[in-house]
Parts: sequence; C-alpha cells; structure tokens
Amino acid sequence: MKTSKNKSDTIAAIATAPGTGAIAVIRLSGPDSLPHALALFDHQKKPLLPEQVKSHHAYFGTLTYQDVLIDEVLITYFKGPHSYTGEDVVEISCHGSEYIQERIVHILLDEGVRQAQAGEFTLRAFLNGKMDLSQAEAVADLIASQSNTAHRMAINQMRGGFSNQINALREKLLHFASLLELELDFSEEEVEFANREEFLKLISEITETLLWLIKSFKAGNVLKKGIPVAIIGKPNAGKSTLLNAILNEERALVSEIPGTTRDSIEDTYVINGYSFRFVDTAGLHTSDDHVENMGIARTYDKMQEASIILYVCDISMMDKNGIDTMLDEFKEYIQDENKHFILVANKIDQMSQLPAHLREIFDLDTVFVSAKRKENIQELTEKLVSIVQQTSLTSDVMVNNSRHYEALTRALDALQQVEIGFASLVPSDLIAIDVRQALYYLGTITGAITTDEILGSIFSKFCIGK
Amino acid sequence: MKTSKNKSDTIAAIATAPGTGAIAVIRLSGPDSLPHALALFDHQKKPLLPEQVKSHHAYFGTLTYQDVLIDEVLITYFKGPHSYTGEDVVEISCHGSEYIQERIVHILLDEGVRQAQAGEFTLRAFLNGKMDLSQAEAVADLIASQSNTAHRMAINQMRGGFSNQINALREKLLHFASLLELELDFSEEEVEFANREEFLKLISEITETLLWLIKSFKAGNVLKKGIPVAIIGKPNAGKSTLLNAILNEERALVSEIPGTTRDSIEDTYVINGYSFRFVDTAGLHTSDDHVENMGIARTYDKMQEASIILYVCDISMMDKNGIDTMLDEFKEYIQDENKHFILVANKIDQMSQLPAHLREIFDLDTVFVSAKRKENIQELTEKLVSIVQQTSLTSDVMVNNSRHYEALTRALDALQQVEIGFASLVPSDLIAIDVRQALYYLGTITGAITTDEILGSIFSKFCIGK
Repeated sequence: MKTSKNKSDTIAAIATAPGTGAIAVIRLSGPDSLPHALALFDHQKKPLLPEQVKSHHAYFGTLTYQDVLIDEVLITYFKGPHSYTGEDVVEISCHGSEYIQERIVHILLDEGVRQAQAGEFTLRAFLNGKMDLSQAEAVADLIASQSNTAHRMAINQMRGGFSNQINALREKLLHFASLLELELDFSEEEVEFANREEFLKLISEITETLLWLIKSFKAGNVLKKGIPVAIIGKPNAGKSTLLNAILNEERALVSEIPGTTRDSIEDTYVINGYSFRFVDTAGLHTSDDHVENMGIARTYDKMQEASIILYVCDISMMDKNGIDTMLDEFKEYIQDENKHFILVANKIDQMSQLPAHLREIFDLDTVFVSAKRKENIQELTEKLVSIVQQTSLTSDVMVNNSRHYEALTRALDALQQVEIGFASLVPSDLIAIDVRQALYYLGTITGAITTDEILGSIFSKFCIGK
Repeated sequence: MKTSKNKSDTIAAIATAPGTGAIAVIRLSGPDSLPHALALFDHQKKPLLPEQVKSHHAYFGTLTYQDVLIDEVLITYFKGPHSYTGEDVVEISCHGSEYIQERIVHILLDEGVRQAQAGEFTLRAFLNGKMDLSQAEAVADLIASQSNTAHRMAINQMRGGFSNQINALREKLLHFASLLELELDFSEEEVEFANREEFLKLISEITETLLWLIKSFKAGNVLKKGIPVAIIGKPNAGKSTLLNAILNEERALVSEIPGTTRDSIEDTYVINGYSFRFVDTAGLHTSDDHVENMGIARTYDKMQEASIILYVCDISMMDKNGIDTMLDEFKEYIQDENKHFILVANKIDQMSQLPAHLREIFDLDTVFVSAKRKENIQELTEKLVSIVQQTSLTSDVMVNNSRHYEALTRALDALQQVEIGFASLVPSDLIAIDVRQALYYLGTITGAITTDEILGSIFSKFCIGK
C-alpha cells in the first residue's frame, strides 16, 4: 500500500455494505472527485458548473455514461478540508442494485479514477490530519462493533480517547529527552540541563498512566470476551434450570437426578448490550465418583476465574445451619473485593412465606427466584447489568487494541529501564536510548511516528470503502 | 398492509444493504422526520433549530440518546414534496456497523417512529403522486437488476416507459366510454354520441399498441432468461471446445472421441451485460447408437428454439462438397429472418492459408477461430453482442413485468370483444361493459385504478427500506 501523501489521484469505492439494498453510496475522494462526478451527472433542474456546486448539498439528477442512462442519483459534494478525508469528496447515492453499484464504479475507473484500497479513505483522513492513528483504528473497530461494550470502547477512542493524554505526556517526555541529549553535546562539561528530580517525577507519572491503560486493556478484553459468571451450589439446587431460565432456552441438560451436570457448561449471552459468559458448574458435595469429583474440582477453578459468583440454593431446604455453613465456606469469595457474590434463593414457588431464620441472608446480595417458573429472573439479570455498570470495567477510556497494548507495554519497559538507569547511575547517553525507545512506542500509538509498515498493517485490515 | 393515505405517522428503516459496510443510511419519512432526527442530533458547529435546517443540506454532528454517544453522523433533510416519498424525509448516514444501524433504528422506534414495512417508502411515493404504479414496480426491478438487459428495462420503465402511452390511450378510451354511457341514458332516443368509426379506429390503435407491448414481454423474457444460442456441427468439429473457450472454463466434457457430447449441455454466460444461454448439442450425423440418436434429435429441437445458431465446422476438413451439403441442409435456418446463422470456421491453427474453394462461405456470416488455442473467440462474442444490439430485442420500451403482461392481455381480450360486439351489432350497454373492463385493466397498470389487494401484493415484494 502506498502510504505516503499522494494528493494527485482520486479514488472511489462502494461505501455501503455489499449486496442489494434500497440505496447504496459510492464515495470518491481526491482533487478530481467533483469533475469526475459532474462529467456523468445531469442535474434535474439545470446544468451544474463545478463552481456552482455547493458543499454539503445533495443534488438530484441522472447518471449517464456514453448516452446510456445508468440511474437516478443524488450527489453530495464535500469540499476539502470539510470532508471525511480532508480532500474533496463526492458521495453518489444510487439505487442499491449490485449491478448498478458495480457499473458506476467501473465507469469511474474507466474515467481514470482509481479503485480505493482497503482503508484508504481513513488513511487519507489520517495523513491529512483529520484524526490521529488511534482514532483511525477506532473507525475500523466501530464498524466491526457488535455489542454495547465494543461500540462504547470504539466510539470513545474515535472521539479522542486516551490519545490526547498520551500525546501530552509524550510532549513532556520529548522536552526532557531533548534536554538530556543537549547534555550529551556538552558531556565534557558535566552540566545537567534536565532536572533529574522533575524528570523522575514525570517518568513516574507516565508509568502510572501506562499501568492504568494496560490494566484497562485486560478489563476491556474481559468485556469483549464476556464477563465470567460462575453458577455454583449444592447438587439439585437448580443451577442448570437457572441457567436455562437466564438463557431462555434449553441449553443445559436438566434432570431431577442430583449430579446431572458433571462438567461445566459455558454459554455467552448478551444482556442489555453486555456480554456475560455463564459457567454452569457441577454441584458442590463430596462424592465417591471419580468423574464427578473432577467436575467439582473444576468448579472451584471456575470460581477463581469468575468476576461474579451466583450461589444457587434451594431456599425451601435451607435451615439456619445450612446458611452458616455456606457463609463460612464461601467467606473468601464473599469478602473478595474483586468478586461479586450473589445468593440466588431458588424454589420460592415451594414456600408460602420466608421463615425467620432466613433473615440473616439479607446481609448478602440476595435475589429470590423460581428458576423452574422463570420468576424474578429479570431482577437477577438487572442486578448483573448494574454490577457491570458500577465497576471500573466500563470506564470511558479503555485500551482495546492489541497494537496499543503492545506499544504501551514496550514504552513502560523502556521507562522502567530509565528509572533503573538513574538509580544505578548509568551514563546519560545510555539512558537517552531508553527514553527514545519510550518516545518511539508512545508515538506509534497516535501516529506521531509511523512507518509504511505500521500503516500498511493497520489499514489493510479495514474494509474497502472506508 | 395499510395502503390508504396516512400522512399522520413517520416511518424509518435501514435503506442500505444489510450487513457491515463503511457507512449505512437510515431513512425516515413522514411529518415528524425532522423533529425526530433533531431530537437525537447535535450539530458540530451550533445547535440547529428545525426552521434553520436547509433542505438537501448534509449536517455533520453526533447522534446521542439518553446521554450516550451513539455515533458521528451526517443528516440530510429533504423537505416534502421535494423528496423520494413526497413527504418530509431525513437520511441519517452513520458508520456501517450492524450494531449501530440497529441501535439507531431502535432508538427511533423508542421515540415513536414506526418501523417501515417492505416497500412503504415507495408506496408513499406512489400515493403522493411522485410516480405511477408501474414506475414504483420498476424501482423494485431496478434494485433487483443483475444484468445490462434487466437494468435497462427497469430504468426505462422507471423513467416513464410505456406508462405515458398507456395513460394517453386510456384517456381517449375513457372519453369514448363516457359518450357510450351517455347514449345509454338516452337509449329511448337511439342517439349516437360516440362516433363509431372514430371509436373503432381508436380501438384498433390501442389493440396494435397492446399487441406490440405483449410481444415485447415475450422478447424481454428471452433477454431475461438469456438469448438461446445453439452450437451445432458434425462430430469432432470442436463444439464443446468452442463452448469452453467462450465460457473460459472447463464446463463441457471434451474428448478426442467423436460423439462425446450425447446430451445437450446448457450454460448461461453474460457477455457485455447480455445474458446468453449457450446450448452445446450432440454432433449431427447418422448413428446406430440409440442414445446418440436421441441426442441428435434433441439437437434439431434446440435449433428450433435458438435465436442464434453457431454452426461449427472443422475448416481444415471442409471441401467444396461439404460446404454445398451444409448450405443445403441448413438453408431453412440460414434464410429464417428470426434466426441468426453464424458459420464458425474452427481449427484455423491446422491450416496455413485459406483454400480457394472456401471463398464461397464468405456469403455467410463467418468467424474463423481456433477453439483449442482460444484464438478469435472475442471476435465471435463481439458478433453475438452486436446481433443482440441490432435486433428489436433491445427496444427501450418493453414490458417486463408479468402483472403488466396479464393486464395488457386482459385489456386486449376486452377490446377484441368490443370489436366483435360492434361487428355483430351487440347492444351498446353490453359493449360498454367490455370497454369498462379494458379501462379497468389498463388502469391497474399505471395505478389509475388500485385496490388494497393490488398494492399489498406489489409492495410486499419490495425490500424493507425502499
């Protein structure tokens, strides 16, 4: 892919989804967008001269090529720099027949327009300073987003996200780096232009930000993959029935025989735009069955991995003693700040009223349900959603791109080397190398530093037309 | 489907193809299109009041719902009646993520907009007099068009096609019909308001037009299904090799053994936008093999059905006698004005020069090729295209809709009854019934006469969003 600035050619591509629709949009960008579009266009009202065409105005008329009427179209001109790419852009809105879409693109190519490569419109937007590199990447993420979470992360990144923060920190670091390199020029004289104390303070500030961003990537990945929810409880408490009630389908095998679920069953389900990964586990009890015991061991593993634990109990069978045992057994998880422990008091359909001894469980986060009758299941799912919304998992600024994660990690490594270097009184010229490394990696995120290789690898992942 | 005029509600749907694209367009139509769109829209530059929004102008900004940023969008307002539907229309151009597209539609529905039914935008365009019924149907055909021919028929129909002609004739017929019915009111007095001679002249004129249109439907169907081209010739003349060369793929079974193709092989191939249905036939010769003889019999059938016959011969084996026999044998087809007979002189690679006795074949439409080496195949395909372009098959005005064909046929029947009625001196009141029948059927084509049933059946075939 040619990534250097090349303002001399005009590109075109279908911008809407492939296939047949009511309408489709073909986009042109480049200095000759308007002349090329006008050469094919007959305005309904009166002939249009290029200088008469208003920016951002949709003109209705016909598109004709070699005396053959191709379609009735709308053309909208976006005069650069007030366009997506920053160049002159024309959008041709035509009927959404695949034949017509392809025909119009072929006509444009015959006229000397070049077929746009994947991501080339956004690449031009980046090269023309309409957005930085991480924003350009967010455009692709936004288009690919399939859930609330993915959408929110992408749109925040597209609107700026952590780019500005990274850029500001990088500017400060750059300032110190130049002072440090100045010292090297005067190395004979042992002057210190860069105030070491301020420098270390800045590095500590950057390090803290980087650590936070790196952590957000992990959290973001959890959100992307689905928040892990372990469903645990004694045999026959109704764990599988609860899962089915949540998933609203017969996904898990349910039977009246305790111990039906031997291995864990996983299912991802999107509730209010958040992706949850439910794990139905084997019932917790002592057993002589080897296979069953393996299942029980896995249950404890799943609890470790889970962000949310649903402890399901048959509330009609729960006595004071049972509650105490349970509270004792899961103390560790109940008190863990990084986990959310919810007591799901199941089988309320088998009780007329709540016995006094059960008051104690109100100290826990409790939901009373009948999994079998699908009663109060919504209350439970709403609780799950509110937990996710309250946690830092859904911070507005998150790293969700592995390229950024990689660059942040490498920048962090370099800065830690700088700190170690200062502590070990390493010579300034060696420290300067690590600083430059950090600057380089931070720069690759926003595109302050780019190579054709980086750009090629980023934009080749885009779809054609964007 | 509610087909009566109902200007009180606003509808919305995704107008671009389903799936993920760089951008997508969501269309609103109805009196509240603009307020609904503005309620969600923050203009980038300054807040927009409804009265400030210019028609046909694209505004860039953000779409926000319940404080959640959904996307950066362009909105374009088309003030009725200067819009597709004739009502106020707003197009929201957003990023082409399926999630975003669906989210925006759901938000609009939450705001009280109604999900548009299939074809409802075009239905409204029809009800608001933006187009007649046959033009509305052409919109669906245009969107579905996959070839030059289908596209051309649809776009001509959309631009008016034979609607105006039908309408003008129908107006004249209506005039006579009212005179005829006036006579019935004065039936005691035996007056003749409708000049019989002029009336019959008009009916003859309409009949001629209807016959021509009905014929065009049959031709149009041929074009749609593919123009039948029979490839015939003696065994081992290279018919299958020629077909493969044309199709540019190994579709037909080829071997050195004469008689390899026992049954006919059909393949449709689009050349320059025209669809050809090639039929490779069994070699023409006398055989003792029963199956082979059945194949040969079918070859003659295929020749009857074909519009174009390619007679393939091994030119290196062709002597004076062979030419005479061939010219004699296919005299019928060569002289048939409705068929095009082309001599494909194959295996030119096996000859250094053209012997004198072959000059005679220049009276025929001849192409010299080497099917094996794929030489001059393009000359042949260009000839096929030029034949189609020269024939009346590609008239600009064609009936390509079976509903119209049906209506035209019924109108014709009714008019023929009128003619018979006049000839047999049938009473005017009975003739008036047939005239009304003809008026009815002609009216259903352009939508001058519609029923909810007709509209329902037409627009339910549309895609949502059109």
